[in-house]
Amino acid sequence: MKNSPTIKVGLLGSGQLARMLALRAHSLGIQAYVYGGNDTDPAAQVTSNYWSGPLDDKAAIKDFLRRVDVVTFESEFMDADLLAELSKQTKTKIFPEPTQMKQLQDRWMQKGLLQTHKIPTSPFVKVSDADELEGAFRRYSKRGMVLKKRKFGYDGYGTYIVKSEKDLKPLQQVLLETPQGFIAEEFVKFKRELAFSAVRNTQGEIVFLPLVESLQKDSRCFWVRGPVGHPRFDALKTKVKRFLNELNYVGIIAFELFDLNTELSVNEIAPRVHNSAHYSLDALDRDQFQLHLEAVLGRRLKTPHLLKPGFAMVNLLGSGRTQPQWSDISAGKMHWYGKADNRKGRKMGHINCLAENPNKALKQALNALKEIQI
Amino acid sequence: MKNSPTIKVGLLGSGQLARMLALRAHSLGIQAYVYGGNDTDPAAQVTSNYWSGPLDDKAAIKDFLRRVDVVTFESEFMDADLLAELSKQTKTKIFPEPTQMKQLQDRWMQKGLLQTHKIPTSPFVKVSDADELEGAFRRYSKRGMVLKKRKFGYDGYGTYIVKSEKDLKPLQQVLLETPQGFIAEEFVKFKRELAFSAVRNTQGEIVFLPLVESLQKDSRCFWVRGPVGHPRFDALKTKVKRFLNELNYVGIIAFELFDLNTELSVNEIAPRVHNSAHYSLDALDRDQFQLHLEAVLGRRLKTPHLLKPGFAMVNLLGSGRTQPQWSDISAGKMHWYGKADNRKGRKMGHINCLAENPNKALKQALNALKEIQI
Repeated sequence: MKNSPTIKVGLLGSGQLARMLALRAHSLGIQAYVYGGNDTDPAAQVTSNYWSGPLDDKAAIKDFLRRVDVVTFESEFMDADLLAELSKQTKTKIFPEPTQMKQLQDRWMQKGLLQTHKIPTSPFVKVSDADELEGAFRRYSKRGMVLKKRKFGYDGYGTYIVKSEKDLKPLQQVLLETPQGFIAEEFVKFKRELAFSAVRNTQGEIVFLPLVESLQKDSRCFWVRGPVGHPRFDALKTKVKRFLNELNYVGIIAFELFDLNTELSVNEIAPRVHNSAHYSLDALDRDQFQLHLEAVLGRRLKTPHLLKPGFAMVNLLGSGRTQPQWSDISAGKMHWYGKADNRKGRKMGHINCLAENPNKALKQALNALKEIQI
Repeated sequence: MKNSPTIKVGLLGSGQLARMLALRAHSLGIQAYVYGGNDTDPAAQVTSNYWSGPLDDKAAIKDFLRRVDVVTFESEFMDADLLAELSKQTKTKIFPEPTQMKQLQDRWMQKGLLQTHKIPTSPFVKVSDADELEGAFRRYSKRGMVLKKRKFGYDGYGTYIVKSEKDLKPLQQVLLETPQGFIAEEFVKFKRELAFSAVRNTQGEIVFLPLVESLQKDSRCFWVRGPVGHPRFDALKTKVKRFLNELNYVGIIAFELFDLNTELSVNEIAPRVHNSAHYSLDALDRDQFQLHLEAVLGRRLKTPHLLKPGFAMVNLLGSGRTQPQWSDISAGKMHWYGKADNRKGRKMGHINCLAENPNKALKQALNALKEIQI
């Protein structure tokens, strides 16, 4: 695809990830077309080319696909079969490809895929009924297990920790109410959580973003700092490269990891721009949004470089106040998503700080966080 | 004014400067409302809150002012009296204030203002008719003179160099066709052109952006590199501080300078974000657009810092092709303005490069420029 200012990228979804993709597209001279929910959604505010409609409206999405040169998405929880069909009909490419979205949106298939491609990940079994739940519990009795909804789980929603027999009882009802079922993963005792993203373009070039540490609070990402190192990171990158090449994957992909001291274990992967790489907006000379757009447009990829030796990001999580307020923050850059509703725990924005080292950057970011009343 | 995500900034004008202001506003969580020309204009594409109308439509601008909390503009060539009146009626502040816009949009008043506030600038006289033209020519006969339209001149339009008597003749007709008249400035032989911007917020805090060198080609900015130093820069900053405080100026203001070796002389000033500071989008930890928005919203100003020791910017000037194209650029970041019409010499976008020193950054930027067919 030739680079020209008439190139139109279609974004499915209208939340903060689509907003940040649209903003970056604009600055690169790529026209951002957004298809999503309400006119007041984060991404709807930042483009004049906004289509409002349900994410399963076949005719509307087909029309949208026809208007643009390439399509990407901010959430992997879409009707992948529908998208594959419409992409074929309209000849508009969707990256990452819907067939891969389908495999990755289902935790059971995702874990299977990781296993097949020899990417280290914790043991798991499928749990569809009470018998399988019982079986999984016995299997992982030594360390305990985590039950995760196969689809549509995020930020801890749909995740249950099972440590003893008494945790099983309430889950039987949950199982009945969740037709898509669960997977059970052996509980992993980790030192800390890490993450990184990889990007592969249509030509097969691959670049990596730095390894970062993340801290979750109430199952939601609270902060990220980096860069960090790990003795197994290079070996994992080699495996990920092979994995992405074998899939012929196009776009950015985020890896969430457990640091097991001498090993790295992949917890989850997401075929999209990701909260764990929001730091890149200010800390790298090309951020995750630019790299993803370049990848799906078939532009050359350049390895992103740090602008300062250390960086940190803190999420601004909603408190339920109607009207967030802040004095001036003492350090860093605020990125606000423009969400109309300030619900408790909702990701409303984030702050990025740069410093001589990751710890200093994190300290600054946590201080800045205190200055904001969300 | 309290910082809150419901704050709305109104931008008058819909070109690239308004576009970059709107994009930065979005990322800071400030709602950008744009009032301008066509729906396909650069700034119109990047917001859902776009009002299209003439820049002298009293009722429409009044309505626009009522919808927002504070207003700023991308061009000083507006009807300042009208804006002052509407600002008073609606109680919506416009920064920089229309009274100052009025003084600064007129080169004769601007030069007078500089003189009054003891800011060094070249000798000048008003030229309204053939007699005054003749008088100015005699006055500046030794070094020659430059004739500039008092209003609406930009990128060399409305500028005439007078070196000998024969240059005068054609100007008599031009004089008749230009009711607002001209000023004549003594021709300045300079070593190089420099520039910087200053920002003052509603509370009176002032910060400066670095001093840069700029090269004009056909009276248009071709490239900028920096930071550069000059022995008189600190003294000039002191004078500018006093000047801005005395005016009670609010917003960013750009100074274009002549480097006279041992002196600095102010060529022109512009009460707005400026091409000479576009490098700041990538080279500083807070760019001119953010600083200007913070100033007009009354937020605290922090001195911007360099992210790398050297930076450069090259403008992407239109060639008249209908369809610009580029391969991947080898270095730097491209900023494209999304202009529908690719006219010869028109500013279509720019490229910013960072490096260990200004020269290296400029070299990279000029190389990248060659890779683009505009």
